[in-house]
Amino acid sequence: MKVFVINGPNLNLLGVREPGVYGNESLDSILAEMKGEAEKLGVELECYQSNHEGDIVDKLHSAMTEADGVILNAGALTHYSYALRDAISAIKIPVVEVHMSNIQAREEFRHNSVIAPVCRGSIAGFGKNSYMLALKAVYDIIEL
Amino acid sequence: MKVFVINGPNLNLLGVREPGVYGNESLDSILAEMKGEAEKLGVELECYQSNHEGDIVDKLHSAMTEADGVILNAGALTHYSYALRDAISAIKIPVVEVHMSNIQAREEFRHNSVIAPVCRGSIAGFGKNSYMLALKAVYDIIEL
Amino acid sequence: MKVFVINGPNLNLLGVREPGVYGNESLDSILAEMKGEAEKLGVELECYQSNHEGDIVDKLHSAMTEADGVILNAGALTHYSYALRDAISAIKIPVVEVHMSNIQAREEFRHNSVIAPVCRGSIAGFGKNSYMLALKAVYDIIEL
Amino acid sequence: MKVFVINGPNLNLLGVREPGVYGNESLDSILAEMKGEAEKLGVELECYQSNHEGDIVDKLHSAMTEADGVILNAGALTHYSYALRDAISAIKIPVVEVHMSNIQAREEFRHNSVIAPVCRGSIAGFGKNSYMLALKAVYDIIEL
Amino acid sequence: MKVFVINGPNLNLLGVREPGVYGNESLDSILAEMKGEAEKLGVELECYQSNHEGDIVDKLHSAMTEADGVILNAGALTHYSYALRDAISAIKIPVVEVHMSNIQAREEFRHNSVIAPVCRGSIAGFGKNSYMLALKAVYDIIEL
Amino acid sequence: MKVFVINGPNLNLLGVREPGVYGNESLDSILAEMKGEAEKLGVELECYQSNHEGDIVDKLHSAMTEADGVILNAGALTHYSYALRDAISAIKIPVVEVHMSNIQAREEFRHNSVIAPVCRGSIAGFGKNSYMLALKAVYDIIEL
Amino acid sequence: MKVFVINGPNLNLLGVREPGVYGNESLDSILAEMKGEAEKLGVELECYQSNHEGDIVDKLHSAMTEADGVILNAGALTHYSYALRDAISAIKIPVVEVHMSNIQAREEFRHNSVIAPVCRGSIAGFGKNSYMLALKAVYDIIEL
Amino acid sequence: MKVFVINGPNLNLLGVREPGVYGNESLDSILAEMKGEAEKLGVELECYQSNHEGDIVDKLHSAMTEADGVILNAGALTHYSYALRDAISAIKIPVVEVHMSNIQAREEFRHNSVIAPVCRGSIAGFGKNSYMLALKAVYDIIEL
Amino acid sequence: MKVFVINGPNLNLLGVREPGVYGNESLDSILAEMKGEAEKLGVELECYQSNHEGDIVDKLHSAMTEADGVILNAGALTHYSYALRDAISAIKIPVVEVHMSNIQAREEFRHNSVIAPVCRGSIAGFGKNSYMLALKAVYDIIEL
Amino acid sequence: MKVFVINGPNLNLLGVREPGVYGNESLDSILAEMKGEAEKLGVELECYQSNHEGDIVDKLHSAMTEADGVILNAGALTHYSYALRDAISAIKIPVVEVHMSNIQAREEFRHNSVIAPVCRGSIAGFGKNSYMLALKAVYDIIEL
Amino acid sequence: MKVFVINGPNLNLLGVREPGVYGNESLDSILAEMKGEAEKLGVELECYQSNHEGDIVDKLHSAMTEADGVILNAGALTHYSYALRDAISAIKIPVVEVHMSNIQAREEFRHNSVIAPVCRGSIAGFGKNSYMLALKAVYDIIEL
Amino acid sequence: MKVFVINGPNLNLLGVREPGVYGNESLDSILAEMKGEAEKLGVELECYQSNHEGDIVDKLHSAMTEADGVILNAGALTHYSYALRDAISAIKIPVVEVHMSNIQAREEFRHNSVIAPVCRGSIAGFGKNSYMLALKAVYDIIEL
Repeated sequence: MKVFVINGPNLNLLGVREPGVYGNESLDSILAEMKGEAEKLGVELECYQSNHEGDIVDKLHSAMTEADGVILNAGALTHYSYALRDAISAIKIPVVEVHMSNIQAREEFRHNSVIAPVCRGSIAGFGKNSYMLALKAVYDIIEL
Repeated sequence: MKVFVINGPNLNLLGVREPGVYGNESLDSILAEMKGEAEKLGVELECYQSNHEGDIVDKLHSAMTEADGVILNAGALTHYSYALRDAISAIKIPVVEVHMSNIQAREEFRHNSVIAPVCRGSIAGFGKNSYMLALKAVYDIIEL
Repeated sequence: MKVFVINGPNLNLLGVREPGVYGNESLDSILAEMKGEAEKLGVELECYQSNHEGDIVDKLHSAMTEADGVILNAGALTHYSYALRDAISAIKIPVVEVHMSNIQAREEFRHNSVIAPVCRGSIAGFGKNSYMLALKAVYDIIEL
Repeated sequence: MKVFVINGPNLNLLGVREPGVYGNESLDSILAEMKGEAEKLGVELECYQSNHEGDIVDKLHSAMTEADGVILNAGALTHYSYALRDAISAIKIPVVEVHMSNIQAREEFRHNSVIAPVCRGSIAGFGKNSYMLALKAVYDIIEL
Repeated sequence: MKVFVINGPNLNLLGVREPGVYGNESLDSILAEMKGEAEKLGVELECYQSNHEGDIVDKLHSAMTEADGVILNAGALTHYSYALRDAISAIKIPVVEVHMSNIQAREEFRHNSVIAPVCRGSIAGFGKNSYMLALKAVYDIIEL
Repeated sequence: MKVFVINGPNLNLLGVREPGVYGNESLDSILAEMKGEAEKLGVELECYQSNHEGDIVDKLHSAMTEADGVILNAGALTHYSYALRDAISAIKIPVVEVHMSNIQAREEFRHNSVIAPVCRGSIAGFGKNSYMLALKAVYDIIEL
Repeated sequence: MKVFVINGPNLNLLGVREPGVYGNESLDSILAEMKGEAEKLGVELECYQSNHEGDIVDKLHSAMTEADGVILNAGALTHYSYALRDAISAIKIPVVEVHMSNIQAREEFRHNSVIAPVCRGSIAGFGKNSYMLALKAVYDIIEL
Repeated sequence: MKVFVINGPNLNLLGVREPGVYGNESLDSILAEMKGEAEKLGVELECYQSNHEGDIVDKLHSAMTEADGVILNAGALTHYSYALRDAISAIKIPVVEVHMSNIQAREEFRHNSVIAPVCRGSIAGFGKNSYMLALKAVYDIIEL
Repeated sequence: MKVFVINGPNLNLLGVREPGVYGNESLDSILAEMKGEAEKLGVELECYQSNHEGDIVDKLHSAMTEADGVILNAGALTHYSYALRDAISAIKIPVVEVHMSNIQAREEFRHNSVIAPVCRGSIAGFGKNSYMLALKAVYDIIEL
Repeated sequence: MKVFVINGPNLNLLGVREPGVYGNESLDSILAEMKGEAEKLGVELECYQSNHEGDIVDKLHSAMTEADGVILNAGALTHYSYALRDAISAIKIPVVEVHMSNIQAREEFRHNSVIAPVCRGSIAGFGKNSYMLALKAVYDIIEL
Repeated sequence: MKVFVINGPNLNLLGVREPGVYGNESLDSILAEMKGEAEKLGVELECYQSNHEGDIVDKLHSAMTEADGVILNAGALTHYSYALRDAISAIKIPVVEVHMSNIQAREEFRHNSVIAPVCRGSIAGFGKNSYMLALKAVYDIIEL
Repeated sequence: MKVFVINGPNLNLLGVREPGVYGNESLDSILAEMKGEAEKLGVELECYQSNHEGDIVDKLHSAMTEADGVILNAGALTHYSYALRDAISAIKIPVVEVHMSNIQAREEFRHNSVIAPVCRGSIAGFGKNSYMLALKAVYDIIEL
């Protein structure tokens, strides 16, 4: 089983950006821990980060043939990128939306996710644990 | 460690109500499976369901002294019960919001959760697995 | 054939509350007349009133096994109780929405019924006759 | 007692148009059945259909002197014809609004009736039976 | 100089309809008085009333070649008939909007006039005197 | 008969400010012409202009005892001064709202008049003639 | 193959009305050119224009039995006539929406078409060529 | 003179819940102080708290016959319970709305009170003193 | 202890303006009674009324050095004067908002107070007693 | 004559993505057919597809010097990319907006095109034929 | 070259009011520094502050003949004073809008400036340096 | 001191695009002049332009370690790119928003800047001088 972990704009700054909101751990560190968890489940993770909407659309397209599922933290694109939305609904494999912070408790513009309606489900607010839960979630969808 | 699992209005009809959306399994069956998972983690679950907003407020209040965390599927109250919201923010223990269906993919009125801003995090769209993930989420919050 | 007649908050005050809007007749008197009409049609009426949203949800649930149809005047809950809405769509039997006053001719907040979309139909504005018409309406749905 | 039954735009296509929503029976057939019911009550029905807003305004005006009440299915004009609204409030006789489908369960634009506030009451969602209930409703208003 | 006085839906009921709002005088009586005033100014009035939007559009078109100006009380069409609006802006002659009642002091839907932006000016709230003032207004526009 | 003609902010700049919208004539020149008209009707005009909301409120208060009616061009205060609105409804004498330009054909913020609902009527769009028409309008209200 | 070309309110004034927006050519001239094009495709055109909403509804109804497709420029009715919308969805044949001007580049009220959702497709902004393209569009729908 | 002091959801947690907003004093302590004040005025207080909307509706109904006035802190129900609103307007005795915090200075959803329009008046923002002022307010309404 | 009592636009007309809403007592009479109450508390009142927003801003500024607290009935300025709002938040002393009428039960525009969020608290709906309660409220804030 | 055919995000998946909406034909196949049509008209087509907003902006810029017109299907960028809008209005050559599906009949967010106001015209709803019609449309604009 | 520096309501409290937002420096001190800068440019500054909207309108009018440009910090009037807006657009000389704080980062009501559309440009967020930059901006507009 | 000058989509077309709005000078020419100014201040400018949102996010990230401040004209991205917003708030150095045109005086969609709340300040409407003022602004922030 292969799962893509795709992170959107500014998530490369994890650990640096607003530690009060996102914690002090870097994205690499989180993904390393996540890979450890994945291994136990027999899941191969391919991690990808980009600040470019188009790159993420391209990566989602490639997931169609190369992956069984996707864990997606689209960053701020969550709130306006209908291009991502269309990409998610175009590919047939399950996509799980994930956010480290509780987006409903932050600025108004973060309350609306334009990609949520075409994802299988969403997990938000648990810091880096959001990723671990998403891994388990996508694993169960594919396995069951 | 003790965790309350509180289910709101109409969730007693799980397995009967709209199986296309919620599946065929009863709430009791889901909770039984959940208790199995909890036991492995050394977590004692106390499950409660009510169709009465006031009962759920009362139960949340009692959680303050009797539990370490709460998993809450508030059903339709999610969308208008500011009384629940106040109860959640009044008690100090972590509350995790959970939904079996992807509420962002359903009717417009389900897109807004008035309790989300005061919960620690939320998990939605994974069917009964939403509960299992919430258990893991609340466990990690308390344990860590 | 058995039909539940369920009345929501403040309808116990009929005859007392705003007679200019609701007339001088008490709920008991209206229900008595309604039972007379029901008898002629061979319908058994079970009448229930509560000021508690949760009680009405519970009663609607019990209707699933105990009644063939429901006549529901949800009072002010009409305008915000998504819990009632979910209960109505969860039970399979026909529910007819009824109002004594013309809710479209009153305050703005009364113009929207959150339960209307999941009821079979609605009747409003005919005073106590709204109930008699609803009886005939639900009878015909069940009978035909 | 004389009652006008006025049908607005596209209702001449009943039985042809969207049978899933409106059923397979023609308007003529429904009105014939309605006339049978009216006769029993000693009510003379005059039925009128037009796709022209102006014609319906004219007909409503004539009702002032020629009829004791009106049953009105304004079709799509329900949602924007303030000219109809003014005609209804100008004439003194009771007007009952009727819809075969449950307009609250359809497209957003059908949720608002600009004529409802000036009608005596409204009946919606019972298919052709909506007309029969409206007949009884208007009869009782006039008779009592 | 020739001026069209065009009255829209329900204005034929003046004197009958809501005398509290519109007074007891009939449209004919008002127009007769208006003609008296017009004569003094050397203005020929042609009066037209219809409950049909299309008729009023047609009449406005004919004004292009037959009249020097138009006094228009569009009744309820004021609030939604973009067809009237287009007709007014298509003809080159001045159109003065007139209302007997103060539309800003009535129901919300009457606060917006979709034709006002393409009329030369508007006069509202002076009862039948609104027509007399409009006559003077249109006369001055044409004369000067 | 005595009538106050009150002009609000920036109207002292008439003839200077946006001549494309307001023409080249100064306020003094318009008021002089207006006084000529008033004399013919036996009306004494008292003209007042201020750029201060409070001054206009004060002047309206004094009108209660010193005038029979008011012609008011509130300038931009038209669109937000609820203090003016309260002053107008507090004094018992008739107030006629006047605008030289067609405010419905200009910027969105000019479409709403917060004072219109408490004025007797309004006249807009006829340039300086708006004042002359308002004079006639207020004269007729007082005289009749 | 027979196609109805239906034009709504004010389109009879083409060539006269706002030539800056609609050009100098009359409707007759455009339709003549269109008939030339139609002949080449073996299509019989029946052209109809009316300023009356009801007439257009009637014509659309007749299209059900007399035509294979409809080209419709509803003029200003595009923006509010739900009666037209219902007529279009009631008849089974394809209807193509057409506008000479780019309605999205004009006044706000022209941005919304209430009939677009029930038409097959729409073509706007190409002047008289919009009609020629619509002819080709409807031809291909019917032919293929 | 007898006055009901009714407290809604979560107010039983006063002193525990958000002391930064509500202070450290318990509801019992506040009510005790309030009773002291009441005694001086010769007023008998009956204090009631519930987290159940229906219970508060019931209590308000009983006030009709058992009390001369009501002091009501509806908690979060303030913002959505139209059932409370109907109960308040149904009973004839004066109801005074009270809030400890300044609800206009908190979250947006707290800015709107659906019960305010049917209460006699409201007092907010003075901490426990809000209750003392409400006591004086209701006393004066009844006494005078 | 010194307290400013500041009254805004049109409150000088108390007793004259809309007695149905505001009663028959003049502002002077109310203030006299208020001074009597103040004396008992050892409070010196300085009363000020103006119809000028700027004057009230100036007076609020002077309160900074000359008073211990302010009772403010801003009249219609309540609903739009952000200048007042800024003045209130700029001075450090407590300001209590007061209204004689229940502003939530009147026109829509009166439901929103732009100054409420920066006042300590507000009291509305008790007629002249609103002032007496505000006196007590501000006294307690300063004293305690 | 040279025309650019630019396709935005996810259109590379045509034939794969939602065939119920977009059909089974690939983009390459459609473009091949389109080139056949173009040849007949003596038009050289240059086809470009990208999932990157910036690439499409760049391509539009290059069209300024390299093409006579543009056919643009911006995909989901249609609904939020003001950068595309600015690019279209910056280049002087005609741009025709094209959509295969009827965007007005789909999700709400697809009803608004932020680029439509700066395109010459738009064609939507005819499947692959939308492209053929756009080719003819842009050809006629350039040729005439 | 002469430039007016006009400051609106509450700016006289600079250094006192909310030092966290506006700093500790008084308006006089800032203006003194500004005059130093102006002298270097050969600009004569005339500084004016008022808490009265009408005074600022008057001052703007006088700028028409006495100044070459205006630097305007309208304080809270920025957000609702259409009277100021009209004054700015009436005078022909350039007006530069200035704010010390970043108004887009504060309360929602501060996000909208009703005067911005008629100013030449705006500068916000740089503390007292906003004034210095505005001086340079207005100097360059006049000089160039 | 090093400052990045970042220009977003379509700003490479300066001098070509809408000269009526943006003037005839190219971006290179403006930046050259700006560098001259920078030199005088001892500031090193690094200029960057891209039509790609992702590139600008990347560049902002690099500014964190390579620059002391940023001058940003985000072009149309200003109005929807929450990804830019997050990038700006993630990096610690000051960012100044700049626009050549007065965005508040243009289309509605340009009135809202999603990045303004996280920038230090903004300067708009002074043509190329906006850049020079921004240079001085950012210099002072860093220097002081």
